[in-house]
Order: sequence, then C-alpha cells, then structure tokens
Amino acid sequence: MKTRLAFLYFLLISFSILAQEHKHSSARPLNFPDIPGYKSLKTDLHIHTVFSDGYVWPNIRVMEALRDNLDAISLTEHLEYQPHLTDIPHPDRNRSYTIAMAEAKEHDLMIVHGSEITRSEPAGHNNAVFIKDANPILQDKAEDAFMEAKKQGAFVFWNHPAWYNQSPKGNPIFSDFQKERLKKGELHGIEVINSVDYAQESLALALEHNLTIMGTSDIHGLIDWDYTEKGNQRPITLVFAKERSIESMQEALFAGRTVAVYNDLMVGKEEFLIPLLEQSLIVEKASYANNTHVLLLEVKNITSSDLLFENESEYTFYDNSPVFEIKAGETKKISLKTLENKREVLLKLKALGCFTAPKQQPTISYSITVK
Amino acid sequence: MKTRLAFLYFLLISFSILAQEHKHSSARPLNFPDIPGYKSLKTDLHIHTVFSDGYVWPNIRVMEALRDNLDAISLTEHLEYQPHLTDIPHPDRNRSYTIAMAEAKEHDLMIVHGSEITRSEPAGHNNAVFIKDANPILQDKAEDAFMEAKKQGAFVFWNHPAWYNQSPKGNPIFSDFQKERLKKGELHGIEVINSVDYAQESLALALEHNLTIMGTSDIHGLIDWDYTEKGNQRPITLVFAKERSIESMQEALFAGRTVAVYNDLMVGKEEFLIPLLEQSLIVEKASYANNTHVLLLEVKNITSSDLLFENESEYTFYDNSPVFEIKAGETKKISLKTLENKREVLLKLKALGCFTAPKQQPTISYSITVK
Amino acid sequence: MKTRLAFLYFLLISFSILAQEHKHSSARPLNFPDIPGYKSLKTDLHIHTVFSDGYVWPNIRVMEALRDNLDAISLTEHLEYQPHLTDIPHPDRNRSYTIAMAEAKEHDLMIVHGSEITRSEPAGHNNAVFIKDANPILQDKAEDAFMEAKKQGAFVFWNHPAWYNQSPKGNPIFSDFQKERLKKGELHGIEVINSVDYAQESLALALEHNLTIMGTSDIHGLIDWDYTEKGNQRPITLVFAKERSIESMQEALFAGRTVAVYNDLMVGKEEFLIPLLEQSLIVEKASYANNTHVLLLEVKNITSSDLLFENESEYTFYDNSPVFEIKAGETKKISLKTLENKREVLLKLKALGCFTAPKQQPTISYSITVK
Amino acid sequence: MKTRLAFLYFLLISFSILAQEHKHSSARPLNFPDIPGYKSLKTDLHIHTVFSDGYVWPNIRVMEALRDNLDAISLTEHLEYQPHLTDIPHPDRNRSYTIAMAEAKEHDLMIVHGSEITRSEPAGHNNAVFIKDANPILQDKAEDAFMEAKKQGAFVFWNHPAWYNQSPKGNPIFSDFQKERLKKGELHGIEVINSVDYAQESLALALEHNLTIMGTSDIHGLIDWDYTEKGNQRPITLVFAKERSIESMQEALFAGRTVAVYNDLMVGKEEFLIPLLEQSLIVEKASYANNTHVLLLEVKNITSSDLLFENESEYTFYDNSPVFEIKAGETKKISLKTLENKREVLLKLKALGCFTAPKQQPTISYSITVK
Repeated sequence: MKTRLAFLYFLLISFSILAQEHKHSSARPLNFPDIPGYKSLKTDLHIHTVFSDGYVWPNIRVMEALRDNLDAISLTEHLEYQPHLTDIPHPDRNRSYTIAMAEAKEHDLMIVHGSEITRSEPAGHNNAVFIKDANPILQDKAEDAFMEAKKQGAFVFWNHPAWYNQSPKGNPIFSDFQKERLKKGELHGIEVINSVDYAQESLALALEHNLTIMGTSDIHGLIDWDYTEKGNQRPITLVFAKERSIESMQEALFAGRTVAVYNDLMVGKEEFLIPLLEQSLIVEKASYANNTHVLLLEVKNITSSDLLFENESEYTFYDNSPVFEIKAGETKKISLKTLENKREVLLKLKALGCFTAPKQQPTISYSITVK
Repeated sequence: MKTRLAFLYFLLISFSILAQEHKHSSARPLNFPDIPGYKSLKTDLHIHTVFSDGYVWPNIRVMEALRDNLDAISLTEHLEYQPHLTDIPHPDRNRSYTIAMAEAKEHDLMIVHGSEITRSEPAGHNNAVFIKDANPILQDKAEDAFMEAKKQGAFVFWNHPAWYNQSPKGNPIFSDFQKERLKKGELHGIEVINSVDYAQESLALALEHNLTIMGTSDIHGLIDWDYTEKGNQRPITLVFAKERSIESMQEALFAGRTVAVYNDLMVGKEEFLIPLLEQSLIVEKASYANNTHVLLLEVKNITSSDLLFENESEYTFYDNSPVFEIKAGETKKISLKTLENKREVLLKLKALGCFTAPKQQPTISYSITVK
Repeated sequence: MKTRLAFLYFLLISFSILAQEHKHSSARPLNFPDIPGYKSLKTDLHIHTVFSDGYVWPNIRVMEALRDNLDAISLTEHLEYQPHLTDIPHPDRNRSYTIAMAEAKEHDLMIVHGSEITRSEPAGHNNAVFIKDANPILQDKAEDAFMEAKKQGAFVFWNHPAWYNQSPKGNPIFSDFQKERLKKGELHGIEVINSVDYAQESLALALEHNLTIMGTSDIHGLIDWDYTEKGNQRPITLVFAKERSIESMQEALFAGRTVAVYNDLMVGKEEFLIPLLEQSLIVEKASYANNTHVLLLEVKNITSSDLLFENESEYTFYDNSPVFEIKAGETKKISLKTLENKREVLLKLKALGCFTAPKQQPTISYSITVK
Repeated sequence: MKTRLAFLYFLLISFSILAQEHKHSSARPLNFPDIPGYKSLKTDLHIHTVFSDGYVWPNIRVMEALRDNLDAISLTEHLEYQPHLTDIPHPDRNRSYTIAMAEAKEHDLMIVHGSEITRSEPAGHNNAVFIKDANPILQDKAEDAFMEAKKQGAFVFWNHPAWYNQSPKGNPIFSDFQKERLKKGELHGIEVINSVDYAQESLALALEHNLTIMGTSDIHGLIDWDYTEKGNQRPITLVFAKERSIESMQEALFAGRTVAVYNDLMVGKEEFLIPLLEQSLIVEKASYANNTHVLLLEVKNITSSDLLFENESEYTFYDNSPVFEIKAGETKKISLKTLENKREVLLKLKALGCFTAPKQQPTISYSITVK
C-alpha cells in the first residue's frame, strides 16, 4: 500500500539521522597506536544480543562499537542458552550476524561471524569466531561442537576460565577437556580479562600453553551502564594484524599477536606489549633549562588509557615524583637531572599497570636526542 | 538437565545483581512535588521495544524508567508496523506488556497496558493506553481500532500531530477524522510535546477541544543516547492523580489533570501548572539584613527542572538580576528592597519557561512571612 | 654585591616564568564582539590593592585582568581610606598606578590612571579615572576633590549609589550634591552594576540624567574567590571606542557609549545594547529540512555570556521551546515553521536577560537569507 | 570624625561577611588521619607575603590556609631580600607575623613565628621557625643569623637544597657550611619537597644526617594559581605532635616526626610513614561472595591524597588489577581469592607513590577479620 510505504520510508529516514548523530558524538573512543610491522586493531569478540541472553537488538551493538572506536566486533550468541526462544524462535542461528552486517554496511566496522559454545565445567564457555555457519556448531556433545568449529576454520578461545560460577576458588581449572582440545588444535586462546575480571592465573595458563591472550566485554546489557557511566572503558583485545581486514585479524589471532586492555591494565606477551607501550608515548620536546643540567622533556600519551610509570633511568627527576601517571591524551612535563649536558639520554620507565606475566611489569626505553 | 539448570541459575543471579546496582546509581531522577489534593505521577506513555520498531528488550525500558524515577510507563508498540516480524513473529500482541510486568514486579513501577494505532494522515498515530487486550485493536480500518479501544475503556491520545512527516508545514491538522473521534468520545488527549518537539499549535488544539495535554519520549533507541548524554531529560506527562494507582492515573487522564514537562519547559492548564509551580519553590529563609530594609530570601527549587523567573513583585531586587534561574535542587538567595520592614511580603514571579497557552506564561505568588 | 644581584636575577626569572604560564592558562576569558563603527573594550575601572583597602599587590590585578581577557583596568585606590597606612606610608598616591604600569608593560593591557574619592552620603563614593596625578585630588572638601578631578580632565562616576550602607532602603538617593556636580560637569557616569549588585533605580537615574552606564567589580580580595569559584564572571563595562586606546576609551565614556555586563545580565542604552546583541549571535546555517517547510537554523553565541531569548518572530518553532538559552560559545539549532519555503526570513528574539531601561528588554532582529 | 568611623565600620562588616563565606566554601581541604600516639598536624612553614617578595597581604595567607584545612602556617619573609622596601619600609620585621596573628584570632589556625635567612650558596636559603623576634636575626654574616636563631630556640631547616639556581646539577651540595651548622646544633631539617620539586638526593641527606623531612609550598603568588587550578594540592609537612599546640609541634619537629606530602607523593621515615598509611585506609566490609571463596572487601581512603597500591598479599585479586588506585575519599571494592574461606586474612599492599628512602616504597599490612 502506497501510504504504508511512505510511512515506512519516513521512519527509516528519521532513524538514520539519529544514527549519524551518534557517530559524531563518540565521547569515549578507544585509541592505540600501531606497532612496527602491524596495525593495532581494537576488537571485542564476546558480545550478546536479544538473539541469545542479551537485551538489545544487534544494531545497538554496532552503534556502541562505533562510539568506542572499535575496528571489529563479534556477536557470539550462546547456541545452547536461549532465554528468549519463545519470542524469537529462530531457525537460523546466523540471524544476529546477518542483521549486524546490514547495520555495519555503511560504517567502517568489521563484523566477525561468531558463536558461543556453552557448557558447564569442565568444558565451560568458549567462543568460536571466524566461523562460516553457526547452525552446525549446535551439537549435543561439546566435543562435536569444537570439532565442527575447527572444520570451519574457527579461532576458539576459552571464556572467563576463572569465573567463580564454574570455578568457586576463582582460579581457572585447566582440565582434561582443555588439554584434549589443545592437543587437537581446537583451542587457541584464553580470556585473561572478561568484563571487569582479570585473572593472572589465566595469564599464566596462556603463557604455559601458548594460548592467545584475550580481553572481552561479554556485554549483555548496555555498554553505557556496565562500563561508561561507571567511569570504565570496555575491555578489548588489541590484535596486531598485517592489514586491517578480517583475514589478517584471524591470522594474527592464531599467531598470538594480542594485548588485552581494560582501562589502564594492559596484559600481553612481552614481544607485543613492549612495542605497544613504546609507541604509546611520544617525546615531543627535549631541551635543557637555561644555565642548568636539568633536561626538560614533554612526553605525550597518545592512547586512551591512563599510563602509570616508575622512573628507572640512570638519572633522577627534578620536579616530578619518580612514580607518575600520564593520562590519556595528556602531555606531561618531565625533568631529568642528567648532571651534565648530554646529546643522547636514555629514559627508562617501568609500566606499573602493565603485565607480561604474573607480577611481571615491563620496562620500556626511549633514546632521546637533545636538540 | 541438572547442570543446565544450575548454569541458568547463576546467570540469573548475576543479572539481578546488575539490576540492583542500576537502581542505586540513578544519576538523573526526575522529581516533582505533589499539588494540593493530588499525587504528581511521573509517566511516559509512549515507548517502543523490539516488539515493534524499537531496539531493546522490554526489561531495558523498565530499568530506564527506574533510573528516571518514573511512576509509570506504557510500552505502546505499533500494532501495524512490525519491522522485526521475521525474527519476532508474535501471535500475541501483549507480549511486550507481559515481559515488562514480570520485570517490574520487584520494582515500584507501574506498567500501563497500551498499544499504538498507526496510520498515515489524517488519522495519524494514536496511543491507546489502559487497554485490556492489544490483539483485537489490530483492525483494518482505523475507525474500528478506535471503537475497540473505546470498548476496552482506553484513554486515547493523538501522537505528535505536528510531525512534519505527516504535516509538512509542521503544524497539526485537526481533520474530520479527529472531529469524528472526539464526537464519539474516542479521542481524549493530544501530545503537545513528543520527543524533542513542542508545538504550541497542538497546545491551542488541546485548549480549544478540551483534550488532555500530553508529553512523551516516543523512545525507540536508548534514553541515554537520545536524551541523557545530550544533557536532556526524557519528556514526561505529570499526571495529578488522587492516589498512586493505575486506576487513579486513568481517571486523572480522562479528567485532563496533567502537565507536560521536557527539561525546563512545562506546559499545562493554568489550574494545574500554577499549583505545580507554587509547590516547586520553597522559601526556606526570610529575614532583613541588619540595619537595612533589604529582605533576604532563600528559595529552593525542589524539582528536577531548572526554573526561570522574572520578578513581577511590587519590589525590586538588591543584588539579583530581575530575570534569574533557580537550578534543579538549588537554593537561591534573593534580596528584595521592601523600602520599609514588613511582616508580610508578596513575591510575584513570572515563570518564563512555562506555558498555560501559546505565548502565555503564568505568574505565581508567594506570601512570605518575615520572622 | 654580586651575589645579591645574581640572586635577584634568578628570582625575577622564576617569577616571569610563572607569569607566562598564567597568561596561557586563562580559563575564563571574557569575549564580546565589536559593534558597527566601534571596538568593544572590556574594562573594569573600579579595583583596589594593598595601596588602599585591598589585599593584593598591583601585579596580581594585572594578572587577573589578563586571565579575564580585559582590555583595560584602573586601580582606584581610596584617597581618604587607608587601613594599611602604618605599613605603607606612601607619600605618593600614584604608586599603585606606577607599579601596575611596570607590570603591564609586556602585556597587551591598558592601565587607566584613577582614584576613588570617598565620602559618606550624600557625596558617597566616586571614581575619577583618566586623571594625571592622584595627589592633588586628596582634598578636605569633597567639592574640591571633584573640582580638581575635572581640572585633570577626569571622567567621574558615582559608585554603588544603591549600596545599603549609605542608602538603607537599597535605592539610590540623587541628592543636591549630585545635582550640583552634574550641573558643573563634574559627574559623568553611574554604576548600575557594582560587584554582584544591580540596581534598576540606578539605571533609571542614568537614563534620566544622561549619565554613562557603568559596571565594575570593586574587587578588594581575589577575583577567583569573589567571582570565579562561585561560578560568576567579574562585572565589567563594555566601552565602545573608535580605537583601542586610552584616549578613545575616555572619549567613549564621556559620550556614554557603554554596556554594563555581569554574567548574563547586560544593561545599556538601546542604541548600544541592541547592536551588541545583534553582533553576538551568528546564523551559521539556514536551510529547509527535506520535503518540509521547517527552516533549520544554526545560531552561534560568540560572547562569553549565556544569552536567554524568547521567540517573537512571526513563526513558531518546530522543536524548541520559545524561551531558550544559547550558552557562551554554543551553537544552537533552531527550527522555524515558516509554513511555506521562503528566501528571506526575519528572526525576532527578545533578549530576556538584557535591559535598556527598568523592566524593558530589547528585541533584536536577524534577517536570514536561505540558501 | 564620626562619619569616617561609621564608614570604617561598614567596610569591616562587609569584609568579615566575605571571610565567613570563604570558610564555608573550602573546596579542597587537606585531610590526614592521626597516628597512634600523635596528632597529625598539617603545616606549611614556608610562605611569603608583600612583606618580603610575595604578592599578597598576610590575611590572604590565613584564608588560603583555612581553605586548605591547615593546622599551622609560618610567614617566613626573607630578612635580606626586600623588593617592596620602597613602599613598605618596615622598621619591624615582625609585622607580617603580627598581622597574620590578628587575622587568625577568630579562626582555628596556628601561626608560627618565622623568618627566612637568605644567602647565596653554599649557605643558601634557610627558614628559622618558632622564633621570638625576627629583627635580631637580620645579620651581616650568615653564621651570626644562625647563632641568633638558635639562641631564640628556633627550629631551622634548609630550603630547596636541590634548587638549580644554587645547584646547577639539580642536586643538593652538603657543604662545610651545613656541616658546621649541624655540628653546632643550628640546623635541624631539610626540605625534600619544595613547591613542585621533590629531590630524592635531599631525602638521602635527611636520612644520612638525621634531619627532619620537610615539605613546603614556598608560595609567593596565589595558592589557587600555582597549585589548585593546575589540579595540585599545596605541599605540606605533616607533623606528628603529642597535642595540637605550637609547643608540641615544635617538639615534634625537633624530634623528626614528620612526613612531607605533595599530592599523592608522601615522603617520610618508615616509622611515621607506615603508620600514617595504615591509618589512611579503613576496611569497611569483609565478607565472602555467596558460594565462593572470593573475599569481598570495601576499603576506604580517608585522606585527601589519591593512593596507589600494588597487591603483595599471599592471594591474588578476583576482579581488580593488582596495581590500583584508591582516590581521596573513595571506597574501593577489592576481591581476594583466598582459595578457602578464612577467618583472618592478611592484606599486604605496597604503596607505590610513597617513599621511606630513595627508590624505597613501604609495604603496609592489614589484618582483616571476616564476619
């Protein structure tokens, strides 16, 4: 009917105006620099919508991701846990992905096809991402689900292994089930950060078994309510990919090139976390104060994380505490007492909020040329 | 299966913890005082969810309302416009209401059963609230839908009559359709505020035809994104009811006892807007400055709206501009030059942001006793 | 002594570094546009330091003025009231001016030479600015002080005539003393705003006797404490001068070309206040919404005052309240229902917080060309 | 003259109203808990006014101190360096103290009588506080000034020994002059924090020579401009005194019972810094999460400093980073994975921003009883 169509058209128009406004207002974009040889992709690969036990339509997830300045998301609906099944009796478990793809079409956001394989312990919860079809992954036996995921070329990671609902001590239990999956090449990553939880025991497992280090929001409600309005950022996985593409992202995840980030906490293998931190600070100025041997530096943090450092240089500071923060986007003045005027100075900083292993914080070095 | 059940239980637990936290964090509660003889109920009776063309599950609407400190909401899904029908092929048009009722059970929020009757102009969009069953209201002919709504005892109001999609000049067109409904007792109210739009021409119609004055959010996305983060509050209808109950609310709406509120704009009939404003300010202190005839007042705005006034008292101010704002919750010092010391002083203030008719702002009076 | 000199040098260096930093950090600069034919100079011509009953050294006054982005200040020390005389037994009443001049030398701030002639009522307090030498203005008889000020070519204005310490009713008393001064050409202006006090009775006197309208801070302590940290701006006089020079400023003051400003309150003669307001708003965009007769405007307030308006155009608004604020620096979207598409539209706005006479607010007009 | 007196009276009234308002508005009060056996007095013993090279009258210093919630200040005017001497040719070097005492009379603030003995290196700058008369301390030879200070019972500390104007490498030079003073009992303390400068080399000297550790603002301009508006707090010395009195404060300083504080940096001897930190946190709740071994703690920081910690407990955290901040006044939720349910748990935290010696951060312990 002509009238109905016109009516529909107007409604669509008015919503897309809305969507554009959101794009511009992003008040909380996440930012991290690329590292030598790789693009740093900001990803959240653990998300739910009304198509499993979440509470929003997939388009809201796309808009949230755009506000957070993400490069990629995956809507990983539980295949087995479907509390809205009465109202959304979907015969096709790919609907969430399909709707998100349509919404993302006009935006610069990659949608990774994914699903959550959900069991009680010991199998626990696991995300399969870069899948081709969610339907055949729904299997009676967990083992069969993992096998199918592997068949589709999926990257599979273990979700919140330290979740106290499945592990009452709050520590991950690496059971025979995981060992078997690992052996069969069916398990590739592990969440060390899930929502607000960081488990250094999970980090230990990642390092021991060479699993890719993951951080995800596992959002069910609204990012605004669970993170933003509490002053937090959503947890993400930085993926160091050769290009900004789905395929490169997948390759990087299999290769273990990640850093998990939640607010000011960064967790990753030394070989990725150190270059990330070294690119995160830019020494914008370096010159001696008149008639002194005090070297004045201006150092900018170009990330969206506040970064915390302890001075480990050969030289002490003139008017800073040796423990100091450079807030996201801030340029900090640092003054080094070099005792004589130098041409080259090595600034060594321990990144107190970053971990390459349990209780292990990296030290980064900047070689500074004085003009 | 036992394990599955345990798993379900944990998920439910963890979400309800979340919900409680939300309840406490409400950063933007709407507040308005009762008026003599009536409770002031804060209501939003025009809301959508995934069950028509909205983008969230009904529980999110309940949580948003709790954050806004509302007394009542109605999820008024379009009966005829169902863009998510493929995924949500509901045979029962009351589902949205049923789910919201379950969610609201533990909270102090009233859910009004409602539906939207949606046509092109001249019928346009109309909300029927306090219905008993949404299903029979879905009719081919608009006239039949209104008749059925009346049969169920519904209070029916005309939505955004000035919406430019249906009225390109941006002014409401009160057609034969509306005249007929009015005559048959099938139309009782009119939105003068819909989302961010206020039409004083709609207010003129409300006064001319004695329609109840309504304000609603018409929310489809998130209250946070469309209102809160832009510094706005959601539009509401204050309903002056004999008691805090569904039935009293319904009686009050039929009786036309409302004020529509959006941020600092209040629109209502003089007989309700003036007492509302008079209750909104409290004179907390009144005494003369030593050795002077300058009367020092402390006046508190107990509403969540910033209120704008112009002094129309017999006396001028000592150290205030005659045009001044008292912010939500603020206590303002006002000093009146009464020329001699008085026992009783009449403070007369024109409420510049409030309207009882187009271009007609009310003046309120406070009789102040000096201690 | 060499050592002492070196020591002095370092102290000077370190203070000047400080001063530069202040210049950059100005967090509260006052801004107002020029009007056709005139520069709008931001001035505060009523200020005290330790050289009368103030509490800071003159250099602090210069720095405060730079932070407020003023064009000119005058340090108007009381000649007769000298509570710090024991410690500062100055033989030369020009010291405050001399020190401020030295401090201002490197900055783009004009220092107007001034003094306060201080008596009880009926003479009251009066500022003489653009004087040449403060010493001879100190006289036993008030009449002689005014005569000397006139001899020096001073512009003289009556301070806070409504001050309740001298006028217990809080209203100005225009006595024979003032009449005599006026007749002799020894009184040229009147404060309608002094610190936080606005007296519309003083405005009435200004208009009746053709006195220049003045607004001043009368600061004794710190601008930060008395104004800024309470969310206020310092009161100023906008002087509309042919050039940005002391001489032009003086000519403009004698000619009565001023507007007094305190926060959002602006008080001035119609012939200056209306052009000031008309330059204060810039219509940045004007175009019709697709397929409608709704004209979308983007209007920027380029001043540092929040401005409050009421729509008095022929047309009503689509999605704004007819009473609205445009905050300092803000660009506001306004949508006019012009009923048909027009090439030229007249936007008429009443400036609710501005006064050209007691209870008299000006209406400004913008002729808008639609692209 | 009667009129003049009345006039004076009004001015005094109006200023005292002002003063009261300031007292209430203090937006930045410093707070630190007492430690076992001692009151923690918040002191700033290095301050200037117009009576040496500062830029405000002494009353402003009193008001600043009240806003900062200090217990004691000393106005330590340079005896030898008097740039305002032309205008303030004081014959009595105690004037600054006398005026401050008068101002402080109605307030709960202690004024310590002090002076600065000012020389080039090697003597450098030194403050003598708890003096009786400043005049005889003004001596040609530095040695004589120290001798006189000792005679008066003064506590003397070395100011900013690392100041690059006197020590171009930015490191303190402990010369024969200091050694001699120390031997004669004429030097008792050393600034490790002066204005924004912290020198760990000065801390090393304090520990080596058993000098009292001091932190001071050395303010010349305004506390607001140099500290507050840059987001900093003024540096202070916490003095651990048996009572809240001048005499106890003096005894404590001679006994070396201090911690220097600047924002989040605290520097002191282990025996005082550890109890201060242990009193700074209060464990408000401790209980196990249902059906888990996760111990939920709520820990409140009752100081005005943000405190930074690293977990060094036997147990890891459930949903916190092991490096975390508890902001001033904040209550932080911390969850410990104790692996089994315990009655007593030891929480061990390294205070990352606090120093008991160069590069030496203290670890504090809380024995927590679980209900």
